[in-house]
This record gives sequence, C-alpha cells and structure tokens, in this order.
Amino acid sequence: MSLSSPTSPSDFVARFRRVRRRTEALAALLSVEDQQPQSMPDASPTKWHRAHTTWFFETFVLGPAGIAPLNAQYSYLFNSYYDGVGARHPRPKRGLLTRPDNDAVTAWRAHVDDAVVGLVQGMAPSAFAAAAPVLGLGLAHEEQHQELIITDALHLLNENPLRPALQPSSSSETLSSKVSSSSSSSSSSSSSQTSRASFVDYDGGVIAIGRDVDDLVFDNEGPRHRVFLEPYSLSTTLVTVAALRAFIDDGGYRNPSLWLAAGFDEVRAGGHTAPLYVTERDGALFAMGVHGERLLHDDEALSHVSYYEADAIARFLGARLPTEAEWEHAAAAVSDDAIAAAGFFVDDTGAVSDLDAAVVSADDTTGNTGDAGAFFGRVWQWTQSAYQGHPGFAPAAGVVGEYNGKFMVGQYVLRGSSSFTPRGHARRTYRNFWPPQTRFQNAGLRLARDLKA
Amino acid sequence: MSLSSPTSPSDFVARFRRVRRRTEALAALLSVEDQQPQSMPDASPTKWHRAHTTWFFETFVLGPAGIAPLNAQYSYLFNSYYDGVGARHPRPKRGLLTRPDNDAVTAWRAHVDDAVVGLVQGMAPSAFAAAAPVLGLGLAHEEQHQELIITDALHLLNENPLRPALQPSSSSETLSSKVSSSSSSSSSSSSSQTSRASFVDYDGGVIAIGRDVDDLVFDNEGPRHRVFLEPYSLSTTLVTVAALRAFIDDGGYRNPSLWLAAGFDEVRAGGHTAPLYVTERDGALFAMGVHGERLLHDDEALSHVSYYEADAIARFLGARLPTEAEWEHAAAAVSDDAIAAAGFFVDDTGAVSDLDAAVVSADDTTGNTGDAGAFFGRVWQWTQSAYQGHPGFAPAAGVVGEYNGKFMVGQYVLRGSSSFTPRGHARRTYRNFWPPQTRFQNAGLRLARDLKA
Amino acid sequence: MSLSSPTSPSDFVARFRRVRRRTEALAALLSVEDQQPQSMPDASPTKWHRAHTTWFFETFVLGPAGIAPLNAQYSYLFNSYYDGVGARHPRPKRGLLTRPDNDAVTAWRAHVDDAVVGLVQGMAPSAFAAAAPVLGLGLAHEEQHQELIITDALHLLNENPLRPALQPSSSSETLSSKVSSSSSSSSSSSSSQTSRASFVDYDGGVIAIGRDVDDLVFDNEGPRHRVFLEPYSLSTTLVTVAALRAFIDDGGYRNPSLWLAAGFDEVRAGGHTAPLYVTERDGALFAMGVHGERLLHDDEALSHVSYYEADAIARFLGARLPTEAEWEHAAAAVSDDAIAAAGFFVDDTGAVSDLDAAVVSADDTTGNTGDAGAFFGRVWQWTQSAYQGHPGFAPAAGVVGEYNGKFMVGQYVLRGSSSFTPRGHARRTYRNFWPPQTRFQNAGLRLARDLKA
Amino acid sequence: MSLSSPTSPSDFVARFRRVRRRTEALAALLSVEDQQPQSMPDASPTKWHRAHTTWFFETFVLGPAGIAPLNAQYSYLFNSYYDGVGARHPRPKRGLLTRPDNDAVTAWRAHVDDAVVGLVQGMAPSAFAAAAPVLGLGLAHEEQHQELIITDALHLLNENPLRPALQPSSSSETLSSKVSSSSSSSSSSSSSQTSRASFVDYDGGVIAIGRDVDDLVFDNEGPRHRVFLEPYSLSTTLVTVAALRAFIDDGGYRNPSLWLAAGFDEVRAGGHTAPLYVTERDGALFAMGVHGERLLHDDEALSHVSYYEADAIARFLGARLPTEAEWEHAAAAVSDDAIAAAGFFVDDTGAVSDLDAAVVSADDTTGNTGDAGAFFGRVWQWTQSAYQGHPGFAPAAGVVGEYNGKFMVGQYVLRGSSSFTPRGHARRTYRNFWPPQTRFQNAGLRLARDLKA
Repeated sequence: MSLSSPTSPSDFVARFRRVRRRTEALAALLSVEDQQPQSMPDASPTKWHRAHTTWFFETFVLGPAGIAPLNAQYSYLFNSYYDGVGARHPRPKRGLLTRPDNDAVTAWRAHVDDAVVGLVQGMAPSAFAAAAPVLGLGLAHEEQHQELIITDALHLLNENPLRPALQPSSSSETLSSKVSSSSSSSSSSSSSQTSRASFVDYDGGVIAIGRDVDDLVFDNEGPRHRVFLEPYSLSTTLVTVAALRAFIDDGGYRNPSLWLAAGFDEVRAGGHTAPLYVTERDGALFAMGVHGERLLHDDEALSHVSYYEADAIARFLGARLPTEAEWEHAAAAVSDDAIAAAGFFVDDTGAVSDLDAAVVSADDTTGNTGDAGAFFGRVWQWTQSAYQGHPGFAPAAGVVGEYNGKFMVGQYVLRGSSSFTPRGHARRTYRNFWPPQTRFQNAGLRLARDLKA
Repeated sequence: MSLSSPTSPSDFVARFRRVRRRTEALAALLSVEDQQPQSMPDASPTKWHRAHTTWFFETFVLGPAGIAPLNAQYSYLFNSYYDGVGARHPRPKRGLLTRPDNDAVTAWRAHVDDAVVGLVQGMAPSAFAAAAPVLGLGLAHEEQHQELIITDALHLLNENPLRPALQPSSSSETLSSKVSSSSSSSSSSSSSQTSRASFVDYDGGVIAIGRDVDDLVFDNEGPRHRVFLEPYSLSTTLVTVAALRAFIDDGGYRNPSLWLAAGFDEVRAGGHTAPLYVTERDGALFAMGVHGERLLHDDEALSHVSYYEADAIARFLGARLPTEAEWEHAAAAVSDDAIAAAGFFVDDTGAVSDLDAAVVSADDTTGNTGDAGAFFGRVWQWTQSAYQGHPGFAPAAGVVGEYNGKFMVGQYVLRGSSSFTPRGHARRTYRNFWPPQTRFQNAGLRLARDLKA
Repeated sequence: MSLSSPTSPSDFVARFRRVRRRTEALAALLSVEDQQPQSMPDASPTKWHRAHTTWFFETFVLGPAGIAPLNAQYSYLFNSYYDGVGARHPRPKRGLLTRPDNDAVTAWRAHVDDAVVGLVQGMAPSAFAAAAPVLGLGLAHEEQHQELIITDALHLLNENPLRPALQPSSSSETLSSKVSSSSSSSSSSSSSQTSRASFVDYDGGVIAIGRDVDDLVFDNEGPRHRVFLEPYSLSTTLVTVAALRAFIDDGGYRNPSLWLAAGFDEVRAGGHTAPLYVTERDGALFAMGVHGERLLHDDEALSHVSYYEADAIARFLGARLPTEAEWEHAAAAVSDDAIAAAGFFVDDTGAVSDLDAAVVSADDTTGNTGDAGAFFGRVWQWTQSAYQGHPGFAPAAGVVGEYNGKFMVGQYVLRGSSSFTPRGHARRTYRNFWPPQTRFQNAGLRLARDLKA
Repeated sequence: MSLSSPTSPSDFVARFRRVRRRTEALAALLSVEDQQPQSMPDASPTKWHRAHTTWFFETFVLGPAGIAPLNAQYSYLFNSYYDGVGARHPRPKRGLLTRPDNDAVTAWRAHVDDAVVGLVQGMAPSAFAAAAPVLGLGLAHEEQHQELIITDALHLLNENPLRPALQPSSSSETLSSKVSSSSSSSSSSSSSQTSRASFVDYDGGVIAIGRDVDDLVFDNEGPRHRVFLEPYSLSTTLVTVAALRAFIDDGGYRNPSLWLAAGFDEVRAGGHTAPLYVTERDGALFAMGVHGERLLHDDEALSHVSYYEADAIARFLGARLPTEAEWEHAAAAVSDDAIAAAGFFVDDTGAVSDLDAAVVSADDTTGNTGDAGAFFGRVWQWTQSAYQGHPGFAPAAGVVGEYNGKFMVGQYVLRGSSSFTPRGHARRTYRNFWPPQTRFQNAGLRLARDLKA
C-alpha cells in the first residue's frame, strides 16, 4: 500500500517503480493531443500531471539532497500550490504549456526516476528514516494524481461532441439492446426506492475515528480522537440510478424544497436537469464514461453528482447524508484484507480494466458487516461533514505542511474510494474533499437516518 | 426576550409594538435617500427591510387568517427567499424599487400593525397557541433585520467618500488627540499579544449543547444533543486592534503561510491590506463606523473581519478559532440575567446609543466564569464550525421551514452577539452564520487552544 | 436656442434661468426615492444629473473666475469623465451617494445659480466674449442631461414590476379599448410594410455637411466639409410599430441572416424577443413609457431599439440605414423655423407634456421637403455611420476638449432629436452617438436605399 | 495570386496544391502539442485551422457536387460561423477537440485534396465558370488562415514563460550585443520623432476607391465608388520602435489626454504599459516574436499594437491615423509588380523565412511614389475608418455571403499586409478588419495629417 511510509530502500524502490509505471500506463491510454489541453481551471492536462508528480520528487526528495533540477524553469511551471517553494504558473493556463512537449516530459520522468532510485539506494539507515515520510508522501501523491488523470481526461473527452472513449469497451452489449432492457424498470417511485434499501443500525456513543500519523503519510487523517454519535442507521448499498430516475421523473431538478438554497441556485444558473455526464433521450438515461457514452442501468451506483445533488437526492429518499464519523465508525468492520481484495481499478502491473464505476452494480454488496464493496472501490461517498481539521490536528512541519491544512474551508468530506482509485490507495480513515458544487468527480452517496434514542 | 414564543395575546402585542417601534427608530437615523439604494447584492435597503418585515407578518400571520394583503404585488416585491410563497423580485435589484415610496411603506406598516394586533387580540386560546410559534418567529425575524439595517447602512455609507456618520457621535474626543495617544502602543509583537491574553481551561468530555425547540423560535438551535470535546482552553477576552496592528506590521496580509488557501486568494484578488472598514494612514489605523471614520484604539475589540481574517489572525497569535461546541460549553456559565444586563445597543424604547462596537474596550471583561461581556454584546465571534444541522435537526414544518435549514452549506457559525444586536435577542444557543469571505458583519474573534489530555 | 453661444450677459442670464428651471421641473416629476438609485452603470440618478450639471458651471465658469467651490469634495463626487479636472467617483457607484441629499443639492444649485448670474452680469464685454463659448456649452450640456434625466428615469421605472408612470397620462383611452382597435392591423406582411413607405430620391454628388464652429458649442459638428454621395433614396416617414410586429411575427429575432453577427450574439445572450421596453401578451404589443405600460399602435414610430435592431429591421424591410451625410443632406430642406415649431417635449416654461414618443404617430409627416416632423422631435434616428471626427476635426482647447473627441470610437451616430429632447436643442448638424448595443435610448430609424446611378 | 478567381481547372489545381502545401509547411513548424490548445477565444488551434480550411472545400465545393463528407460530424466541429450551414461547436472550446487527432486531420486533408482535384479536373467549362468564384474564395480563405496560424501560434507561445520560438532564428546576433548597440538611440524626443518622418502631400478631391467584384473573391472590396477627400499628407515610412520608446518614456501609457476614452479604460483595466508582446527590462525593450524573445531596434517598424495604441501614438506624434480612402488613394501608385516583389513571408514553395515583421527595418522605404515597402509586407496599418460596407455594397448571394458583411460593425479597417501574410495575398483594395482593442495582430501604423486647403 502506498499510503504508508516505506520501510526500507528496497521497499521504496519497488513501490516507486510500480507507481511511476502505473502513471505511464494510464497516460498511454491517451494520445499526445489528449494530454495537452485543460478543459476547465479545476482540471489539469495529463501531461501536466506527469510533470507535476515528477516535480514533486525532484523538489522534495532530490532538492534537499543537493541534486539540482534538470531544468530550473520547470520548478515554476509545474508547482501546483506550494507557496513555500516560490511563484508558480497560473493554474488556468496549464493547458497552454505546449513546451516542454510530451517527449521532454518523458525524458524528465526517466531522469528523475534514475536519480531518486540512485539516491535512495545509497541512503544510510538514518538518512532513509528521515526521508521515509516524504518518500511515502511522494508515492501517495502520485496515486492521487492517477485518479485525477482519469477524472480530468473524462471531463475533457465529455467536452467533445464525438463523445470519444478513454478506453474502448470490451463489452459486446450494444446501445440499442440496452435501451430495450432498461425501459421496463423506470417506474419505481420515491417511496419504493427508500424501502428497497436495507439499513443497519448503530448505537453511537463515544467512539474513536482518525488515525495517529506515525507510519502514515497524510496528516489530515489524524490524530485519532473521540467523537460522540447519536444512534443512527446506514444503508447497506449505494444509491442507484433508479433513484436518480425517480428523482428526475418527480421533477426533482425543478423543486426547490428538495435542495439547499445554494444548490438550487447552481441548478438554476447552470440549467441542470441531470448529473454532469448524464443525458436523457427518449426516456432513457445515458452517461458519458471512460468507454464513451452508454446507457445507464437502474441498479448501478449513481456517480458524478455534486454534494448538492447528493444532499437533494438523499432528502428526496427520506434520508440524509452520513457524517464522516458515522461512515468511518461503520467502516471499522471492514478488514484490511477485504479492502485489498475489493474491485479497484488500476492494479499494480499497470494494467487498466473496467474503468467505469457505473458498470459496477450497486447490488453486489451484502451488507455493512465486513463487505468492502459498500465502502470502497465503486464511488466516493459524499458525507455531510465540512472538511475541517480533526481535533488536535496540526499540519506537518515544512513545506509539505501545505499538503492538506490550508484547504480546510468550504469543502466537504468524501469517504471510501472509487473505481478510478489505484489499488492500495484506499483506507478507512482516508479523507477526500471537494467543494459542494463539484460535479466531475466519481462521487455518489449512501443514505443515513437518525434513530430515536 | 423576543426569541421565545409569546405566552399570551397581550404578551405578544406588547412585544410586537416594541419591536416594530424599534425598527422605525432605527430607520429614523437615515434619510429617505439613505433608505433607498442597495450597496451590494448581499446588503438590502433600509426601506426594503421595513417592507420585508411587514410582508412577513402579512404573509405568515394575516394570510393564514384569511386577511388579504393590502397590495398583492408587494408579495412579489418583498419576499426574500421563500420559494414556498412563490416567485420573488431578484435580490440584486432591491434598490431599484423606488415605488412604493417611503411613505407608502410607512402606511403599509401601520396597516399591518393594526391588523395583526386586532387579529391576535381576538384569538381564542387554542388559536393563539397554534399561532404563537410563527408570531414569535415574526418578532425574532424583525430583530434580525434590525441588526441588518445598521449593518447594511454602514456598508452603504462606507461607499461614500464623504464617510458620513449614521449617527453623529456625542464624544468630544478629537481625531488628533486620539492619534497621539495611540501611537505609543503600536510596537507590541505577536508573542506579546498572545501572552497578554489569559486563557481558561476546560476539561471537555461528553457535554450537551443546543436547546430543544419548544418555546423557542429558531429551529436551528435544536435539538439539544451530546458532543464529545477534547480538553481545550479559551481566551477570556476578545482579540483586539493591537493584534491586528501586529498582524499588519508583520506582513500578515502578504504571508500565505498564515492563511487558508481560499482566504489568501481573496486577499490577493481583492488587494486587501486591512479589514473592510480599516484604513492605515501615517501609521495609524482608522475605521469607518456608525459615527463616521475614527481612530482605532489598541485595546478595543477587533471587528468587521472575515472568517479568513479571523482564522489567519488566530494562527498568527499561535492559537485557533474555537468550535461552536467549545464556545457554547464555556458560555453555559453566563446567566440569563447577565446576558440581559450586558451592553447591547438598541434598548426597548428604541433609543439608540453607542452603536459602534469598536468604542467598547475588549478589556472590560473579567473572565469566562459568568461575565457576559466576553461573550455577548460586543462583536459576533467566528467559530471554526461549518454551519450544519445539529444531530437530529429537522426543519420546522411548512414554509417557515425555509427559515434556516436550506442555508446549511458553505457558511460558518458565529456565536454571541454584537453591539448592533437588539437587546433581548442574544442567547447562549444562538447560531449566526455567514460565508467565510463575509467582511461587512460586526464580527471578531476569540482564541482557543488544544490542551494535552 | 441653447446650442449657440450667448450674445450678451442678459441673453445668457435669461437662457440660463430657463434651462436651470427646466431641470428642476423635470426632477419634480420624480420622488426623492426615484432620484437616488442607479439602474445600471450606463444610467445615472436624477440627483446626480442635478448635481453634475451644477458642478459643470462651478468648475468651468466659477472656477476660472477664482470663485471657490461650495464644497471641495463635490468636485470629486460629481465629475463625470473629465480627466483634466482630476480623479472622480466611479461611475457605477453614483447611486450610492445618498449624501449630499436632495435638499443639499437643491441648495447647491441655488448657490451656483446666484454666483453664475452675479459673475456674468458683472462681466466686461471682453471677458464675456471670452467666456461665451463655455457659458453656451454649460447650457447645452444641461439640456443634454435633461434628456438623460427622462431616459434614465424610464429605465429605472421599467425595472420595477409595478411599471409605474414617470408622469400620469392625461389620456382617457383605456388599455382594453386600445387592444381591440389594434388587433385588426396586425397582419401586414414585410413586403407591404416596405411598399407602404414612400421614398424621396436624392442625386448625391459632392455636397457639404457639418457646421463651422464659430457661434456653436459642440465641437463635433464641425468643420463643414465636402462629402461625395452616390444617388440614394430616403423614406419620408419613420419605421413604425407595424414593421416591428411584422419582424417579430416573421421570426426576425430568431433569424441570424437578418442580423449583424455581433447583434445576433446580443440577441442570443440576452434572450431578446422584442425591444427593451416592449412585451408581447396575447398577440398584442405593450411598451413601457413615461406614462407607464401601454398598448402600442401600429402606426406610431418605433422607438427604443438598438443599432443592431434598427439595422436588422431595415434589412428585413429590404432597405438599409442612411449614412449621416445622407440624412443631413436631406434635412437641409427643413428650415430653422420648422424645427422650432416641431413638437418637442419640454417647453421653455418647464411644463412637460406628451413625454412619450410612441404616442406621436409616424404618419403625420408629409414628406422630406420641409416638414420637420420626419426629422425632429419624435425619435432619434440611427445612421449607419460610425462616430468619427469630421475631416479636419480638432477638439476644443482645454479641458472642455474632452467633451466629444475622446468618445469617437465604437459608437454610431444618431440624427434628429426625440420627444425627450428639450425644445431648442435640435439642429440639422447635431450628432448624437451611442454604442450599437444601446437599447434604452429614445431611438428609432428611417429607411434608405441605393439608387442605380 | 490567390485573390482572383481561377481561370481554368489547371490554373486552379496548380494554385490549390500550392496553397494547401503551404498550410502544411506552416503547421510543420509546430509540434503536435503546439497545434492542440486554444490560447484565448479569439485565437484558434493550428489543428483547427487545418481542419476548418478543409471543411470549407468539403462544404462549399464538394457538397454542392453531391460528394458526401468524409465524416458528417466534422461539419459541426469545424464550421466557424456560417449560420446558413447549421449549428456549430462553440468557438471558445475549439482547443478541447483532441479528437480527431492530428493524423486524422492530415488524412482528411488528403482525402479532400484528392476529391477536389478530381472534381475540378472533370468539370465542363460552364460548370467550372460557375464554380470559379467559390473555388477562388476557398484559396483566399485558406491564405487568410495561414496568417492566422502564425498569429495564433505566436499568441500561444507567448503564454509560455519559456518564451519558445515558433522558428529558431538563423541570425547569429546575440541579445547582449544588441543591447549595447541599441541603447545609444533611446533618447529621441517626441518632436524629433515627428520631424524625422517625411510626408507626401495629396490634393484630395473626388477620387475612386474599391474594386468591382468581377474576377475577385472578396465581396467587401467593392463596388468601386467615389469619395471626396480633403487635402492630406501621409508619412512615407511606418512608425518605428523609436516612437514607441518615446511614447513610453513620456508616460504615454499613463496620460489619458493622449487616448480615446475606451482605449484608456482598456489600458487601466489591463494594466498595460507596453504593446502585448513587449517587455521593458533595464531600459531596453524586448519583444516576443516568431524567433522567441529578442531585443527591439529603434528603427524597426512598430507592430502588434491595438487601434487604441495606434491612435494614441499618432496623437502623441502630432498626427492622426489615415482613413482607408486616403491610404488606398496613395497606394494607387504602387504597381502590381512592385507588390509581387515585396518581402512577404511565405513563398509559393512553402518555405518559410524571416517570419518576424520586426526585423524588417521601417527605414528601407524610399517614399510613397511606387515603393511597395511602405504599404505592403511589413505590418498591417490601422486606419481610422470603421469597417462598413462600401456605398452600394451587397453581400454575395448564398451562404458565402456570410463571409464579410455580417461583421461590419464595431471593427476598424487595416490596410496593406504584414510579414505574416502569404505572398500573393496582398492587394491595394484589400480590407482587413479587427475590433479596436485587438492587440495580437501583426499591426502597426503610419501617420496622416490634414493640409490647409
């Protein structure tokens, strides 16, 4: 798992090579043209992701060891947000950096790979122990960008009226056959949606969440601390496309009483009638995904919704979003082995398959008592918790302290992981976060309810 | 207190008359010209506030009793945000409603006053019991708008280069005398600032906050529920202008390491070098206030800062903002009588004095153990808590359920009350809330710290 | 006529008193509330117009004579665009200047009136001769602002859903009676529209337009210069509401082939389906005017259209807009006496009547050979000429040289005058100008055609 | 010359192959990465230019002959602005079309090349005569896009902090040597600038400009018509960098009296202190060009200025911009042979050299009496004439009538041609046009003055 600090030079080198290869395997799905533009300020080009993750190792691993950067100007071009490192290229203009070109970035990656491996292999134990946290952070950081490569590329391809696939599907199913099979299940009502979901009850009380940052790399997961929870109930499955269909059919996108005020303002201003990648045609719902546009099935997990949409759909279903403490408390029942075995998308060899969250049925879960599937590897799950530091949180020392803490405002926590997450990257205490209007992440929801004490 | 439901028709009528008179007393500080324009979309004209609070009683009290509105078009013009009531005039265009004119609004207020009093006085006990919550909400609602009248008028007058006073000051102190007296205390360093503040420690544990909504009018204060707090410490005084001066002198507005990333983006985009109403001239700090522009004293409470500024200044002082639970737990020591006696601004007779928070020294507090002054009646205090429903929260039934719940996203909770708050409106469980970038509210901060367990 | 330089102190004083009184008569149509806000950055509050015209005399007449301003801060607040005079209040914030209030502006006007009259009456002949141009400019400038007072107030009142009247109508005609009378004429086709208009032919050749600036006050009218015109034809009447109706019925607002590209972009971006003040209800066209909203008659002059709309409607009618040279050459046949007798709106006594251009039928014109009605006093007429300096144009010396020249880009010339123009302000060589997207001016069009040589 | 209609199938095919090859030669200067993004809505990617010019032939030549498009979706993706052809991809999103990729566009170009050649070679004389105008338009259209390829690529590369060269320079001159040689000439004053320029006088009178559209392809150049010109004088050389330096040193960018009001608003809003590609460092002026960033020489032609800058600099030099009639009247002395021999940039073989206008000295002109250099092949020259139809202008029939006419508003005419213009594309009657704020075109100015009659 790349989320813990490496234990030895050889452990690091093995993981480093795997992670770096996986980035290249993902980029190989995309043409040089695909890797260049930026579809919106919130997304970044693939080429930029490849360069930025390289910059991270060059700046935070090679730099402190006195190894000069290959090209000093890259420090300016590929810094993302570290004020401590100096000035940086404006984020909305990343897609205009046609130079260095793709080959030059590839060469830079190879150069840094060699230098990092050489440096670490020659480290004395004490030097390695000191470097281990930032080495681990570099690995985890690159895995985060692997998910962003897919996410951002999907957004770019969705802007193209040709609706091209990131990866051609191996499925032989045709759109027309799908249409006929799906129309039959479109009449489910809101109440039947809710009743269909099964819930597991939790007693609450003083519980503990978070993880002390010792061998871990993300400071925002700690410290472990106590939280009081009132009794609550959590659905055992993810909310599905059937619920979205019911919401749409019931006029959900036109009914302000279902929405947070800021959410309905977004809906009105943007003219939204469905999630970002979903289109309704002749009564059927289609979604853009990594295999191109395809028909949605009623029983697959709903994805690519904003916090506002998740909140409104939960309200429509007579429920609410869970807090992150409720979620983590329930996820405690999932073992590390179960997480490791769940169906994430990018395996260690770099082979990529089944990229699309939506093809994973939300029904293949059997409850909350140990099955990873309801928690990990399908879609990120919005919680109702604003992203704040855990009680006692302090950012890591040094420039890498900018990694998490300074973003703790105006965002909401998502838990779990998605089908775009690299294998080994998921964890029960992991805190993902995005602003509530964010629609382009592989994010859905599960339902929570209050229990009478 | 106008925050509880009225207990009888006569109780209501007496409070109703007091509240309605106070609105007019405040408006009387302003010319017809002052009452018309809208200085920004987030602020509203005084005339609009006078009309909207009248609309509230006409719509939610007279309407259900079958009493027709005086002018049906006013329902459209003066609805603020209630989707359940129908369409409404666009918020940014409130200042363009020159008709009805001021006299027509005054006549409408008188008409509705008479109708409401007549209706309530004729109510049978059961009818009154049913109406009491919305009657109480109408009173509390109008008191909230009284604070907004002052707040919004101050923003408008600050846009005028003449820097006119909302209310001429009775003070004989001159600006020049103030300048000489204040310059001597400008060299205090960051560390001396923190060391000067005294802190009180709290053990934490499972405590209870919130108030069950029975006789109360604001649904967002309930339900009362348990929260686990780690041990913490709270400063006994508010952060003062001296701390602001140290922050500015130390380059705080140019140092990204002190800020949340979104906050520093605001600072850069807006070119901020001081709080909204503060100007530095020849080394002295001046602030626009209800008496016009005046010199700031080092020992007065800092006010009109955003959440971002409050957070950055707390970090600069080696502390953090409290959570709302920490704040409310500490405020439990303040008695109702102490709150009632604290120095709020608008008394029941409508007389207005000492409008300006800044002239109230932050030093006249003697601790956290019962003194209201550190908690109420100077400046609202930003907490680090995002505005969410308390566990178990459900909006009130009906259209008035739109009062609070739908705004529970993207905002932060402020606690206490300010010198612009009407007497009787403050309460330990009161939850004020604004987006983090908000700079025009009478809001400051106090400091919190973690204690080692 | 206020467009020529005054000939003697007594001539000036008489005209000065008439002009200043007329401004007050117009303002008296509006409440204090009406005079305060600014409905958009392109419009200004009535109070601001009253103050700015006063500032003009104080700055350019009293100032050079060594007479100090009543309040030095007013120089900043009420400067419109004269860089040579110094800094100025930002234009979009004019409506926020609640102080000075209306009474203070009235007092300032009286103070400046007395000072100007006193100064001019005491002038020696040579001093008067030197001052005459700027004195005349002050009068003409204030007359321009009189038209703007009405224009801007109409825009403000149109923002109010109550659709209030600037001036109650004296007409006894009711909306319902109007509806029935108009429906019968709604079926006229585009071709019948064009054929109905009668045209007068002009030979063209080398003609002269413009007027040498000697006794005149607007530098942009000169110098008189030669222009070569190809043979052309000009319609004897203004384009009417019937043509608008045919244009709308024919899908004109949805047909890009009728529009300049930038014009159709405006239509699409703004969702335009009719001119700014026109609404279609149940097949009838209503327009907001100075008497409130009223039914439009087929045979009245079309007004309040942008250059883009005028151009598109002319194209729809198989014609084009005239150039300003074509217009002025045709208008040469109208005598000064005929202009003076035409139906402008504000007479010298300040009495205001018949403010609404639209109630003046476009049919009461008898040709182009001397009748002022087709040229003056109904609606300004868009020409296809971009606003540039005439050949040989040089701005007047000094700060007043900023009056016209610096605006000679991106605007189009309108000729004639409107029912909102003060009597005596119109002239054959007068050049009005606005950007092509401007929709809130009292502007229509007449048609031109090329003639085969 | 590609601006006239082809005279025979073989004439067309020869010109067609040359023009199409030249586009590919230009694109070959750019990497696949360079050809993908869009640096701003006003610019387009190289790949898009290559596709759009192909779309033009497929739509307007192959389509009418019944030859189906290779890919029907390309009609939507690569339509620029022809409403008559149907819907189109939003202009600001051209850079997001990563599919079709570069190779697919190359294949499409080859496919269309073959189909067009096959079609035309098989045409009967009458069919060819009918098709000749649109065939000629297709050639001229692609040449216009050749200039845009260079212009847009330069804008893109300028956004890259690496300041990469579109084409490496063959010059051996170094920046440092240039710096020393140029500093000596930096003290020239405004008056010396003007006196240095020599002027030629013209009598004016009734002259004729424009060209009847018979064998020509751009409808906006006709009809030929008469214009009356007052006597004027025209400088024999282009305005140089020395004048820019004097303007900057004199505070020109901070002096509103030199600017049109809208121009100075642009300067203030954009914080402009020099033309778009010019930077001042240590008192020397550098400019981004097709060879990367380089030092500017005092005696080279000023380029890449907006109309506003051109107008202000002309005013600073005591002159004005010429009208397009004045320019064309003077250019009548330049023979076709002289134009053909002037130093344009892309020759027929597709070889590209000397791309940068700025390296061509403005001093190598010997007057206005026949030398093409002052008129053609260095920089486009802003005129003060708004872009309108010539008297008697009517757009061409059919969809290609959208080519020019609908853009005749809000733009200003530029005359001549630039070093980015393909050889054979320049002509005395050619009308280029851009909005006045446009800063990224290869445009400069020459000076005009009025003569006393």
